[in-house]
Amino acid sequence: MSEIDRRRLIRGLAAATAAGGAALTASETRAAPSPAEREPLEVPPLTVPPWTREQGRRTGVPYGSPSPYEDGVQRRLPGPLVGAAPTTGSNNSFTPLQDMQSMITPNGLHYERHHAGVPAIDPREHRLVVHGMVERDLLFTMEDLMRFPAVSRVHFLECSGNSLSEWTAPTGRTPQEAHGLASCSHWTGVPLRLVLAEAGLHPEAKWILAEGADGAAMTRSVPIHIALDDCLLAYGQNGERLRPEQGYPLRLLAPGCEGNLNIKWLRRLDVGTEPFQTNEETRYYTDLISKTGDPKVDGVARQFTFVMEAKSVITTPAGGQHLPGKGPYEIRGLAWSGRGKIRKVDVSVDGGRRWTTATLDSPVLPKAMTFFRLPWRWDGQPCVLLSRAQDETGYVQPWRQQLVDARGENSVYHYNGIQAWYVHDDGRVDHGDA
Amino acid sequence: MSEIDRRRLIRGLAAATAAGGAALTASETRAAPSPAEREPLEVPPLTVPPWTREQGRRTGVPYGSPSPYEDGVQRRLPGPLVGAAPTTGSNNSFTPLQDMQSMITPNGLHYERHHAGVPAIDPREHRLVVHGMVERDLLFTMEDLMRFPAVSRVHFLECSGNSLSEWTAPTGRTPQEAHGLASCSHWTGVPLRLVLAEAGLHPEAKWILAEGADGAAMTRSVPIHIALDDCLLAYGQNGERLRPEQGYPLRLLAPGCEGNLNIKWLRRLDVGTEPFQTNEETRYYTDLISKTGDPKVDGVARQFTFVMEAKSVITTPAGGQHLPGKGPYEIRGLAWSGRGKIRKVDVSVDGGRRWTTATLDSPVLPKAMTFFRLPWRWDGQPCVLLSRAQDETGYVQPWRQQLVDARGENSVYHYNGIQAWYVHDDGRVDHGDA
Repeated sequence: MSEIDRRRLIRGLAAATAAGGAALTASETRAAPSPAEREPLEVPPLTVPPWTREQGRRTGVPYGSPSPYEDGVQRRLPGPLVGAAPTTGSNNSFTPLQDMQSMITPNGLHYERHHAGVPAIDPREHRLVVHGMVERDLLFTMEDLMRFPAVSRVHFLECSGNSLSEWTAPTGRTPQEAHGLASCSHWTGVPLRLVLAEAGLHPEAKWILAEGADGAAMTRSVPIHIALDDCLLAYGQNGERLRPEQGYPLRLLAPGCEGNLNIKWLRRLDVGTEPFQTNEETRYYTDLISKTGDPKVDGVARQFTFVMEAKSVITTPAGGQHLPGKGPYEIRGLAWSGRGKIRKVDVSVDGGRRWTTATLDSPVLPKAMTFFRLPWRWDGQPCVLLSRAQDETGYVQPWRQQLVDARGENSVYHYNGIQAWYVHDDGRVDHGDA
Repeated sequence: MSEIDRRRLIRGLAAATAAGGAALTASETRAAPSPAEREPLEVPPLTVPPWTREQGRRTGVPYGSPSPYEDGVQRRLPGPLVGAAPTTGSNNSFTPLQDMQSMITPNGLHYERHHAGVPAIDPREHRLVVHGMVERDLLFTMEDLMRFPAVSRVHFLECSGNSLSEWTAPTGRTPQEAHGLASCSHWTGVPLRLVLAEAGLHPEAKWILAEGADGAAMTRSVPIHIALDDCLLAYGQNGERLRPEQGYPLRLLAPGCEGNLNIKWLRRLDVGTEPFQTNEETRYYTDLISKTGDPKVDGVARQFTFVMEAKSVITTPAGGQHLPGKGPYEIRGLAWSGRGKIRKVDVSVDGGRRWTTATLDSPVLPKAMTFFRLPWRWDGQPCVLLSRAQDETGYVQPWRQQLVDARGENSVYHYNGIQAWYVHDDGRVDHGDA
């Protein structure tokens, strides 16, 4: 593996391009045309393509769509169900992380996790009630809520079950399959603390039940310190109103916390003194800690593991992709932490012997995805690519084995181990063992 | 007009909500249900809505869409053509600024400006050639370009003809009609200077012709100091590949410069010593400076007015909207400058006698839209709402009359005057005179 060197990469690109037969030789070109003789294109071997010789499609489509050439960029149901019909029951679909070009996930590609399909809610009929241990019970229409002072912030969302395929035998073949229950949006909404101040919290209020209006009536308990910190009653996503599958017309956004806590289609906040011990925080969304795999022997369960710890994944080159040949590439990926900003991402191209700090796209924002980049020259030899995130608290993303040593292989939730991708000598990239 | 006071606004919201009959009285509610007896909702007057009693629609749609209840949020053809069929010729469609929730414009709603419709370009067949006064002519496939080091940045785009309706008799009835040829995205691409360094610029290179692959073969001349500054060869937009109407698979992005310079479907860069004097920079996209309206008397034209100066518009309350009653609101809007960051936005609710500085959503980024907010209590009296942006160079958005005094009413391009919205006593909001 040759040294990673941005200057050499840049200088080397001409040679790399030439090797592919793509560079023009001097004899194949002519002097630049003068303005008077300007024609669409006269530099061989370029010809005038068909789309320059005809009118394009109509302008003014009310709401646009991606190019048909990008129709492979799509959310996918989990591994065994890929290609299956979408369902109305409990299910999820994964964001194509390997196709993401920046920290923002387009709304059409945000991951989904549903327990009773996607309700079709009329925003004029939707209500939010705030009650329980408050001075004044309150009932809001969407119009009421949208008159409150609001704010927009970029935050990731990640299902706590993201990457569960990696706990036992790592099987996620692509970034999407292994880690695609994570996305990032510019969210807009009312700070929850403003609405709670409006209702007037009793001094002994410690937990809030949040309830959704879907058929599952999804419920979770939110500790008051999280509710009063940076939670939003969110109604906007990437500049437009929430998408139906993200809780239209209103969701709770608990930045940095596991996706399930971010109750969609939010219709009720019930203020109390204790956690409400709902189905979703007792039967599910607890982390089984077991080193034998037999909970009867040594099993205990962690409850209320809210924060999603620092994590990263190289999205290209990555499993399922193919390098067309040796030469320069840019290694790219995403990193995030529920504790705050990403401080740095280190990348290794030799399985972890040496690490190089990647460049982070700015702005680097708290509890937001951060896009990282590192120039790389592939020498055509097999190699193992790794990324390791560190957040502003100093926490470093662990090796998979560290997680297994601490928690066994049956936690299901909150997997954030280092992801390895194996590059074969023919350019194929596969899942590797970190 | 009562004093604008965030604390009073917050405290006042309970009363405002109660006035609408929406607050629950203590006798209408009961104690919070214990977890054991939890039911979806038991607080009158809320009933269980239909969407809680049934399964929602299917999960796993490969690429999602907004709620059907949001189908009025759409791009629109210009005033006389609203409702007309989309066209394949020269035309444009406007972003619904009044519906924007943050600085990001969803890709489906980015404004359009076309001269020959939207070409359907196969990215595998698309090529970019760099030639002229360079050491090495270069020809790139998209795959070649995407191996270069890249970067993502948030930047607005604005057609230099945006707001042309406001020059003569201000007629734009809504933020969309008056100013909707402006949008903002998180763009991803290769810094143009890297590719020019790869080609090797001759010392006397001063201008670059950029050419599009659409049927109009759109061409513009880019000064070398702009090309070597922050221009991108952009292939990504809000996390996904460019949309077809934004130049898929490749466009020039010249941050802060008039939209027309940001050549879409980019296929050629021809390096020279002089501007190429193309159709689009001689016949069009020049600013007629005439105080009489008769160019034969005193007309001169400004050419190469690249930078879009600081501008702002209140998007709510704004023309075409209706305030349901007096009480608290949040005044919201967008501001941007082609010179750098927005330093501040001042808002007046009394036609300009007094001004209050609005809050800016962070992060505030250079040459990006910035969302501003100001709590406001409407007393039910007629009033005039104004916003005035200042950028980090100290430049202050002018009054319309200042622009007319300097340039007459026939400039067509580069209008950035202060926008007024008139609030009637019945809550209707109309275009006003600033």
